[in-house]
Amino acid sequence: MSSNRVAADRVDSVTTGPIQGSVKHYREIEADGTALRIPVRRIGLSTGDHFDVYDTSGPYTDHTAVIDVEAGLPKLRDSWAKPDVPGPRTQLAWARAGIVTTEMRYIAEREGVSPELVRAEVAAGRAVVPANHRHPESEPMIIGKKFAVKINANIGNSAVTSSIGEEVEKMVWATRWGADTIMDLSTGRNIHETREWILRNSPVPVGTVPIYQALEKVGGDPTKLSWESYRDTVIEQCEQGVDYMTVHAGVLLRYVPLTAKRVTGIVSRGGSIMAAWCLAHHTESFLYTNFDELCEILARYDVTFSLGDGLRPGSIADANDEAQFAELRTLGELTGIAKSHGVQVMIEGPGHVPMHKIVENVRLEEEWCEEAPFYTLGPLATDIAPGYDHITSAIGASIIAQAGTAMLCYVTPKEHLGLPDRDDVKTGVITYKIAAHAADLAKGHPLAQDRDDALSKARFEFRWRDQFALSLDPDTARDFHDETLPAEPAKTAHFCSMCGPKFCSMRISADVREYAEKHGLTGEQALDAGMSEKSAEFAEAGGKVYLPVVS
Amino acid sequence: MSSNRVAADRVDSVTTGPIQGSVKHYREIEADGTALRIPVRRIGLSTGDHFDVYDTSGPYTDHTAVIDVEAGLPKLRDSWAKPDVPGPRTQLAWARAGIVTTEMRYIAEREGVSPELVRAEVAAGRAVVPANHRHPESEPMIIGKKFAVKINANIGNSAVTSSIGEEVEKMVWATRWGADTIMDLSTGRNIHETREWILRNSPVPVGTVPIYQALEKVGGDPTKLSWESYRDTVIEQCEQGVDYMTVHAGVLLRYVPLTAKRVTGIVSRGGSIMAAWCLAHHTESFLYTNFDELCEILARYDVTFSLGDGLRPGSIADANDEAQFAELRTLGELTGIAKSHGVQVMIEGPGHVPMHKIVENVRLEEEWCEEAPFYTLGPLATDIAPGYDHITSAIGASIIAQAGTAMLCYVTPKEHLGLPDRDDVKTGVITYKIAAHAADLAKGHPLAQDRDDALSKARFEFRWRDQFALSLDPDTARDFHDETLPAEPAKTAHFCSMCGPKFCSMRISADVREYAEKHGLTGEQALDAGMSEKSAEFAEAGGKVYLPVVS
Repeated sequence: MSSNRVAADRVDSVTTGPIQGSVKHYREIEADGTALRIPVRRIGLSTGDHFDVYDTSGPYTDHTAVIDVEAGLPKLRDSWAKPDVPGPRTQLAWARAGIVTTEMRYIAEREGVSPELVRAEVAAGRAVVPANHRHPESEPMIIGKKFAVKINANIGNSAVTSSIGEEVEKMVWATRWGADTIMDLSTGRNIHETREWILRNSPVPVGTVPIYQALEKVGGDPTKLSWESYRDTVIEQCEQGVDYMTVHAGVLLRYVPLTAKRVTGIVSRGGSIMAAWCLAHHTESFLYTNFDELCEILARYDVTFSLGDGLRPGSIADANDEAQFAELRTLGELTGIAKSHGVQVMIEGPGHVPMHKIVENVRLEEEWCEEAPFYTLGPLATDIAPGYDHITSAIGASIIAQAGTAMLCYVTPKEHLGLPDRDDVKTGVITYKIAAHAADLAKGHPLAQDRDDALSKARFEFRWRDQFALSLDPDTARDFHDETLPAEPAKTAHFCSMCGPKFCSMRISADVREYAEKHGLTGEQALDAGMSEKSAEFAEAGGKVYLPVVS
Repeated sequence: MSSNRVAADRVDSVTTGPIQGSVKHYREIEADGTALRIPVRRIGLSTGDHFDVYDTSGPYTDHTAVIDVEAGLPKLRDSWAKPDVPGPRTQLAWARAGIVTTEMRYIAEREGVSPELVRAEVAAGRAVVPANHRHPESEPMIIGKKFAVKINANIGNSAVTSSIGEEVEKMVWATRWGADTIMDLSTGRNIHETREWILRNSPVPVGTVPIYQALEKVGGDPTKLSWESYRDTVIEQCEQGVDYMTVHAGVLLRYVPLTAKRVTGIVSRGGSIMAAWCLAHHTESFLYTNFDELCEILARYDVTFSLGDGLRPGSIADANDEAQFAELRTLGELTGIAKSHGVQVMIEGPGHVPMHKIVENVRLEEEWCEEAPFYTLGPLATDIAPGYDHITSAIGASIIAQAGTAMLCYVTPKEHLGLPDRDDVKTGVITYKIAAHAADLAKGHPLAQDRDDALSKARFEFRWRDQFALSLDPDTARDFHDETLPAEPAKTAHFCSMCGPKFCSMRISADVREYAEKHGLTGEQALDAGMSEKSAEFAEAGGKVYLPVVS
């Protein structure tokens, strides 16, 4: 823990214990002599079976784990091999050298794919494994379009509100519900200390936007920024263990005037800071002119670039415009440079885009940026619903993920209006798990539909507790059910409150199925052949189809 | 009001008064000697301008209106012309005869299109105007893919819970927030009386599923249903003023066994009731065999068919299967029959469908059902998020509407779990307004983007109150803003709580724009030519870009 750390009493207690209806389980495998324990959330079913789901929550949901926020999480990856290869020691360099790292084996088991697929995708630059050597607490994960779509949750204090304790709890809370990475976007006081507490306790990769802290260091005046102060900030954050960094190096001086006629100008904070700097100095962005040196720094730690879209559209009117795509072309150029230094790269994307303009974003990103993983904020499919932008953006996020986006940055209901609280963070995460899963289904991810099928089967068989446990948010599902039918017998009732016992279509169709199976009737021909003489028999049995099982 | 009506004290008071930041306004036009007042919601802006939006809320949001729930709404359409033509007096027959009805003129003004477009689309069967002669209180509206995408809200009591007063208020509440039609799906006691109160007070078309009431009349046993009792129920509802009716006439005997191997069988209540009847009697559905007579009844009142998808998939696993598409083909056959009787038709659609299988539903519906308006329930893009199915389904709804679906049936957060309360109804309506609007944008509806642009402009210019007023839900937008920055000066602050005054990208880009405009810099060449010498000047001005306007 950093010597700058704040007093422990400023970190409130964090949420621990398993999610309702499940337990933490570890699959044990061996990789190059190292015993690996791959975490899964194991959902117990009333049938005696279980269903395992991908688990991002770290030790916090393990009821046997001892959580000590002051000590931080165990340094899981410190003992893992870091093979010697010529050049940088990054997952990209190892993958290119044909080496399957321990991280890659861990990821393959998590994703249900072969270690070779992981290596090949990383080597091609189509996937990244954000894993700073100095953040050994993190459980390896991968971002790439051949794998499950990932989601990021933003946390971080601002000048206006929030404490360190709240931010650490937000990280634990967000990963509990499924955040694959978190970004610490703090801009207020104690940026270094907040980040230290988050990193030492985070089981997922942590991203930052170093320009925010660099700006704090120069008193908030962007014209006073310099490459030197920025570089020092990046090194400080690399040393701490930040896994990926947003760098707005594509905001070039000549692109700035392209935003002048926009409805909403520049809406990216990093983008606007760099635009102001470029205009004030009438000089090309120091992030662009010093990009090679920046690559050398990130390569030493295996920090991944997240090349920021500083000129992303902030409204439907500005989507897919000249400013946005000019920057994207430059991000493509920078992608090639970063990879030549052995540095992993992903590309950030919009923003606000109407549905019919979404797919073009993915197509151009892939074409211009060597298929580097795309990491988008939404996009929001309309501007007219502040207060519901988790939904407006989930629509865009699902579509852009189906088209190939590898990670989705969540948007909470407070977007455009205020800072998300604990409930907003959960709502944002669950909403984005929906978008990511919908895309996994549409892309045919091998493990995706199993969960839908398991839940729907439980629903059809009136296994209410299993339905809750298999859902993304068992607590809410159960609470909603209990609002109308709170009694315990209702958990096993063969009907629900929507239709009541007499109108239950599920019950009727269970009867239909039972009847059809009994008589081998599963197709038109079978029906024609065998059904005529059975109808009286069914009518007799059918007289009972509405018998309520709970009075 | 029906003589069966329940005591007035059972109807609680309903919500009245304008939505925050707007007033009811009427555009006055003349049509064939009739003075028409077309309602709009007029949003007042702090710039002195106003912005009008489509308004479904009826007189309840008119602060000058006297609302008397016992008397019902004024019978707006009773005095309108009902031209004599050979055959039925339906909007379809009139449109085919080349007549632009008063309803069509009213709709054209509402939609911002020509009356002739309305007539032509109705004549072609690509749009419907659900307007029972016996529901003169309703304000005409149109459902068709060339017009704004519409949404429906389901209300209605069940055997388990809810009162008449609650249902009337749900209708008022749902239309307040934008429901274009409502369906009364009551299955419990007082079905007739509940419907009467809703119809006499509803400014929007009301739909029902007559089989629910027919089933109540035979004590809940589907095997006891008969054509005669069903027909009587339909006539009763036509007489009351129901505008459109869901009829599951496509559930044929030979399709029932196709559902036996499904993960979730038959999930439509109407579908399962008819399946049970067909199996019990081993006879073709009485809805199918008596469809001509049914058409004759509906034609007399100009009640619109909503041909129900009784075999719609209830899970991702069952999407686009043989049972679903077999029924859809039959709905196409019935569409032709209905139209030959002069009856308007729309077609109901799924359900649960993964994103990559959604567009095929629209394609086949259009091909097989003569492009009759498609009216879909969601579809839910995944099964795994009970408690959030307004969101899972908004994803599917946006995509299916972009592909050509004309009306979306809302889904609330309580779907699969319980009965929606007042908050759930609002959440469902707003969520579906988002889906519908996102599709309007993607389809290039002429009026759609104006609202996004107006809101984004207000956002960029820090006109907070205008941003709230232009949003789909001004109350929530304002509440969320006030949670972090409640003070009144913050409503005019040139920053918000997310970034605080020092980090505001909107402010920086306003400065960039001001600078660029001052120097005529709006393109790369302009920049190259004129910018070099101006940079010192900007640096001087730029030193002030972060001055907070509120301390």
